[in-house]
Amino acid sequence: QGLANTPGVGPALKERLAKCPGFRGNRVNENIKMENNKVVDTIDIEDMGDKGVFCRCWKSKKFPYCDGSHNKHNEDTGDNVGPLIVKKAA
Amino acid sequence: QGLANTPGVGPALKERLAKCPGFRGNRVNENIKMENNKVVDTIDIEDMGDKGVFCRCWKSKKFPYCDGSHNKHNEDTGDNVGPLIVKKAA
Ligand code: FES
Ligand code: FES
Repeated sequence: QGLANTPGVGPALKERLAKCPGFRGNRVNENIKMENNKVVDTIDIEDMGDKGVFCRCWKSKKFPYCDGSHNKHNEDTGDNVGPLIVKKAA
Repeated sequence: QGLANTPGVGPALKERLAKCPGFRGNRVNENIKMENNKVVDTIDIEDMGDKGVFCRCWKSKKFPYCDGSHNKHNEDTGDNVGPLIVKKAA
């Protein structure tokens, strides 16, 4: 799995692995509401203030809001994910 | 990696793997703006209409918007992720 994430080797290896019966890709979420079949969050704009910053790395301790944990996640895994920002125009 | 995602065995295995030098966890994003160091999207509420549905599985072909690809991702990986919905109150 470390190998499968390696540049160069990774993509080719993943393509092969994907053809193995029973191979499953990586899940994204390991922590948030694990008892749910599907984690969907609904935010009312009225409750949001001028700006909302929302987690897309699934590592935030303030999920569904971003708490900056994507930076450690990116360092740890070589990923490049970051939050969604929703804002009211000035 | 399949094993590391198995209930029961998984958590213990991951804890051990995390202590191996050079072990890196799973990245989340394999497709979106791979040339970016960090993918942050900013949405102006004014451009959004009454409701925005935003991808948090990183598999959408309409990223940063959700196109329903989370369902296939969840099936393929055993994951439980879904979109963020931002809406104007009625
Ligand atoms: S903490 Fe997850 S995107 Fe920032
Ligand atoms: S397509 Fe990614 S959350 Fe729906």
